[in-house]
Amino acid sequence: MTQQVPVEKKVLNENQRIAAELREKFARNNVFVLNFISSPGSGKTSLLERTLQGFSPDTRVAVLTGDIQTENDARRLSQFGFPARQITTGGTCHLDARMVEKHLADWDLSTLDILLIENVGNLVCPSSYDLGEHAKVVMLSVTEGEDKPLKYPSIFFKSELCIVNKIDLLPYVPFNLELAKENARRVHPGMDILEVSCTTGQGLDVWQTWLRERREKALSAEVASKA
Amino acid sequence: MTQQVPVEKKVLNENQRIAAELREKFARNNVFVLNFISSPGSGKTSLLERTLQGFSPDTRVAVLTGDIQTENDARRLSQFGFPARQITTGGTCHLDARMVEKHLADWDLSTLDILLIENVGNLVCPSSYDLGEHAKVVMLSVTEGEDKPLKYPSIFFKSELCIVNKIDLLPYVPFNLELAKENARRVHPGMDILEVSCTTGQGLDVWQTWLRERREKALSAEVASKA
Repeated sequence: MTQQVPVEKKVLNENQRIAAELREKFARNNVFVLNFISSPGSGKTSLLERTLQGFSPDTRVAVLTGDIQTENDARRLSQFGFPARQITTGGTCHLDARMVEKHLADWDLSTLDILLIENVGNLVCPSSYDLGEHAKVVMLSVTEGEDKPLKYPSIFFKSELCIVNKIDLLPYVPFNLELAKENARRVHPGMDILEVSCTTGQGLDVWQTWLRERREKALSAEVASKA
Repeated sequence: MTQQVPVEKKVLNENQRIAAELREKFARNNVFVLNFISSPGSGKTSLLERTLQGFSPDTRVAVLTGDIQTENDARRLSQFGFPARQITTGGTCHLDARMVEKHLADWDLSTLDILLIENVGNLVCPSSYDLGEHAKVVMLSVTEGEDKPLKYPSIFFKSELCIVNKIDLLPYVPFNLELAKENARRVHPGMDILEVSCTTGQGLDVWQTWLRERREKALSAEVASKA
């Protein structure tokens, strides 16, 4: 599809411009932002539910959740008492920076410390669209096969962290966890990898520690750049 | 992304033109063609392995399998003694008609009765690209959640058959099978739905019957249109 390339480039450049504005705005307001990407059904919404559940009520956190259709996820996520808003893309297979900008327009970012963005379920297209986040987090569930990092290298290369979910199902599926990690690190050497089960809660403490420490690192970097 | 629309339309029109040529070629050679679409890791390749395994050696069947990277699937599928060829898209999130045309160019279609095309693992973009197939088949595994037909309606609407895979895992996951079917039929009333496990083999006999009968229906329609 060579005809599409110049237009795609223009769209991506425009996205990059808006993402840079968002990033600057997040930094000015000390908001730490993560962009969660996975296949449909890997457990992004379940992880966010567990994460919100684990926060004390005074945590200044909000969620944006993307889907092609339905407001189901925002409904699921709003029951924890933190702001949760749905971005319905209406057919588009990924979130882009303009959608995030638009859905944040009437939120006062100075009231937030953490913004969690759940992308559309898709292991391909979301990897091309910067949303101004501090880091991308890719999820892979053990039911999907250990070859996925090799088949979808772009998102594993661009994500700082890989969360392997549904480890409670390991006894029932032919999934080689060590090989999956090896494949992820072949694509992205040194990648952080955590193993969790959003069903049993296993590993979620380690995830919460990762989130807290990564946020502190981002804040220190921003303080240093302002000094 | 309004800038992209006219170009996308041009690309889709061009795809439609090539798909129509492919469809005409398949009809002329009496080749029955299915296009398999699902999330990454739902079990498309496993289903194709089981399907090829179930054919007698004189079955005139071939497979095209699409991935962004790696030749793994063609390797997995070629061990059954039938022709299997990989389409590596190199980043593109779906197969298109031109890729199929190119990879079929040196195959004599008159030697085939069935062509099975495995799309890139993606529940969104492949639904927009006709490959000249007789029918699209969407797979959903029970680990992905029963809400997927509502969140990704386009592919469920366009597919004749929904194969619910990994039903051996039903005891271990919170998946409401009846609700999943209800959701699929809300998007696509009258849709055929089969339940299988490519691990235990459960339900594969019903799938083989569906395939045989659907092929006979396609052949009858073509005979009638030529008469």
